[in-house]
Amino acid sequence: MEYLEEEERRELWGKIQDALFQDKIDQFRAEFLEMHPYDQAKIFEEQETDVRMQIYTYLSPEEIAEVMEHIDIEEIEEYFTEMDPRFAAQVLAEISTDDAADILNELDKNKVASFLTIMDKEAASDIKELLYYEEKTAGSIMTTEFVVIHANQTVREAMLHLRHEAPDAETIYYIFVIDEDKHLVGVISLRDLIIAEDEWLIAEVMSDRVVSVQVGEDQEEVARMMRDYDFLALPVVDFQNHLLGIITVDDIMDVMEEEASDDYSKLAGVSDLDRPDENAFAAAKKRLPWLVILLFLGMMTASLMGQFEATLNQVAILAVFIPLIAGMAGNTGTQALAVAVRGLATGDHEKDGIPKLVMREAGTGLITGTICGILITIIVFLWQGNIFLGMLVGISIMAALIVATLAGAIVPLVMHRLNIDPAVASGPFITTINDIISILIYLGMATTFLSLHLLNS
Amino acid sequence: MEYLEEEERRELWGKIQDALFQDKIDQFRAEFLEMHPYDQAKIFEEQETDVRMQIYTYLSPEEIAEVMEHIDIEEIEEYFTEMDPRFAAQVLAEISTDDAADILNELDKNKVASFLTIMDKEAASDIKELLYYEEKTAGSIMTTEFVVIHANQTVREAMLHLRHEAPDAETIYYIFVIDEDKHLVGVISLRDLIIAEDEWLIAEVMSDRVVSVQVGEDQEEVARMMRDYDFLALPVVDFQNHLLGIITVDDIMDVMEEEASDDYSKLAGVSDLDRPDENAFAAAKKRLPWLVILLFLGMMTASLMGQFEATLNQVAILAVFIPLIAGMAGNTGTQALAVAVRGLATGDHEKDGIPKLVMREAGTGLITGTICGILITIIVFLWQGNIFLGMLVGISIMAALIVATLAGAIVPLVMHRLNIDPAVASGPFITTINDIISILIYLGMATTFLSLHLLNS
Repeated sequence: MEYLEEEERRELWGKIQDALFQDKIDQFRAEFLEMHPYDQAKIFEEQETDVRMQIYTYLSPEEIAEVMEHIDIEEIEEYFTEMDPRFAAQVLAEISTDDAADILNELDKNKVASFLTIMDKEAASDIKELLYYEEKTAGSIMTTEFVVIHANQTVREAMLHLRHEAPDAETIYYIFVIDEDKHLVGVISLRDLIIAEDEWLIAEVMSDRVVSVQVGEDQEEVARMMRDYDFLALPVVDFQNHLLGIITVDDIMDVMEEEASDDYSKLAGVSDLDRPDENAFAAAKKRLPWLVILLFLGMMTASLMGQFEATLNQVAILAVFIPLIAGMAGNTGTQALAVAVRGLATGDHEKDGIPKLVMREAGTGLITGTICGILITIIVFLWQGNIFLGMLVGISIMAALIVATLAGAIVPLVMHRLNIDPAVASGPFITTINDIISILIYLGMATTFLSLHLLNS
Repeated sequence: MEYLEEEERRELWGKIQDALFQDKIDQFRAEFLEMHPYDQAKIFEEQETDVRMQIYTYLSPEEIAEVMEHIDIEEIEEYFTEMDPRFAAQVLAEISTDDAADILNELDKNKVASFLTIMDKEAASDIKELLYYEEKTAGSIMTTEFVVIHANQTVREAMLHLRHEAPDAETIYYIFVIDEDKHLVGVISLRDLIIAEDEWLIAEVMSDRVVSVQVGEDQEEVARMMRDYDFLALPVVDFQNHLLGIITVDDIMDVMEEEASDDYSKLAGVSDLDRPDENAFAAAKKRLPWLVILLFLGMMTASLMGQFEATLNQVAILAVFIPLIAGMAGNTGTQALAVAVRGLATGDHEKDGIPKLVMREAGTGLITGTICGILITIIVFLWQGNIFLGMLVGISIMAALIVATLAGAIVPLVMHRLNIDPAVASGPFITTINDIISILIYLGMATTFLSLHLLNS
């Protein structure tokens, strides 16, 4: 189970390919199965249909299942469509239930139904259960393959049970303890179990203050708990505290990656990051909606500026500073936004409340605004030799920075309160809003300056 | 070890506080130690100095160590400064070496030296080793408390050894196999170990194709490996394949969180996200450098626009569309940037090469540019009743979007090739660069249109 660099994988594949071409099934199996399933999957993904069809015949459903668990979810439909349906159903039955459910979510309804009917009844019902849970909840990422024991068993009995369950269980490093009615009553780590004496009762060695998550809990919250508490697995329960499944840390790592990409792409204004193998049309399709919305927001800015055409007509140089002011407002807004969104995501803000953060951001805006304002006043004065123009730009920047910083911080906080994912208040929106505000401040003040005959000097 | 909501924690604290005030040490210990160390740490952090001093006397170094492992690293210096030095040294010796090294990195050199001298020699040397490794490398996040066995041991011997090591080891779920010269030769999971027969040799049951990372490997790469291969622990080796330490998944979750926040904050142009308890000055200090740099970039834009003052003078309405064009260019640029950076971070782009991505982005820019260009041409024509003005803005937007998309994609890719963290090509920079490019395109074309007498109609 060696970690393979791209090249090594290719090279290794050479050998395996020869085995395939010469129909040396044993040699193929020896080479292929020695690799870690992740590498098996990466190599499998690089093959043409005919080679894949050959591989299906060379490997058992269990072995293909291992491969499929590491395939990019976007590729999965193709493979399960080209497999013989009975074989595909057997493979699905061998895949851990949480991954199997994810896979079925990618296939079309009819195919799912047919698979579930061919499939071994027990496996089918386990998977069906999982299909009901809402996306991004604890239920949707949990697996039902876990080891349970009873409090009145001895350590020896528990170990025997464990040895027997080990091959199929998703993890055996946490063993959960239930009562007759399947209520979760305790947990014991394998670490504690192997230290314990054989004849001790589980009730004596287990921890009865077990951390669990509700089946409807948001997966991001589950990830945060696992990170804070350094667990390898978390039990999932319903409202009556019945043990429904467990979530293992390997799935949580995928969740963390997914949530991070999600926040990141929203900050950038991409509905969802394109996959590198997507073509330009697919990518454009994802980005256009945002761009079109922003196009209209931008037109709003333009039409508002149209109100000031007279002003711009009198002093054309005014226009020269518009991108500067709008840009600065956009940048500070995005900074404040990022701090607020990230703080909400990591739960830091819950500690010391919203008002404190808003006050902090107001102060930050005041400081950065004043400093940048004074700087720009001097620069513009030296450049244009007009102190009023300098002050106009300087004061505008200062005002813009204060407002923009506050807007960047408050918008996501308000959305959070309204239970809207604050990350939706994406960078481009804040930026465009702050563009409008700052330009209005600037041109509004310019008009006043003009009426006071301060600029036409 | 129950997961506590903020409120529960407060309530529970009430009880514990009473115990403290009435000096009921047993009651305090009973209540406090029943909590998960994470909750103990959260409660501890909320206390005043005097209460903390009292807690130090109520708990053993081992118990305080557990708490300290879950304290925010930024708070740690205060606590280790207020503790009695001998006690602090004992606590450090009890903390897992990787966390202890992180803590020492927060303290001032003299204090570190004094701690290491008071401290138990063996523990001290283990920690010293870790202090040498560069930040964000495998060496800096690994721990030296791991279980090793020899290939010629039997399963029974290994299990006995494991029982003995279990209390101190960071993890016992992967056991690494070394030869006489400490070379890493294999790995076996506790899962496989408990299934194996007692008298089998480790050599027969271990996997000899063990995945390991070099001590100098980037922590982000380590995190990616752990995610791809679903490991709970990875061995860290030097160039001679000597086993130096292990990295456990709980530390990797922190790394993933850290790297995600890092990319995110760079996209937003914050050198590093302020912690909510920071005051306005601290926050401003972090954001100002970026803002000042961007201020000067913005002035560049302004001075370049100054070249077109004559044009703006003739047709003031031109200025009205500048924020729209600059904004659109900025937005598409950030989208392309996010896709490229994220793709590089997750290693997706390595699969199918840079040129393909660049072509893809060019195509995307062409599609989005054309559609937005046509849209805006119509809108401007309907609004201003001037088809040439409409075409001017439309063509400018189209050109701006194509260039901006390419810039957003290429800049981070080039930086990656130059081994600069592409995330440094932060949003604001790309945005400002694209502002300049797009405005030059726009005003340049406007000047041409004017010379052709197309606009003064």
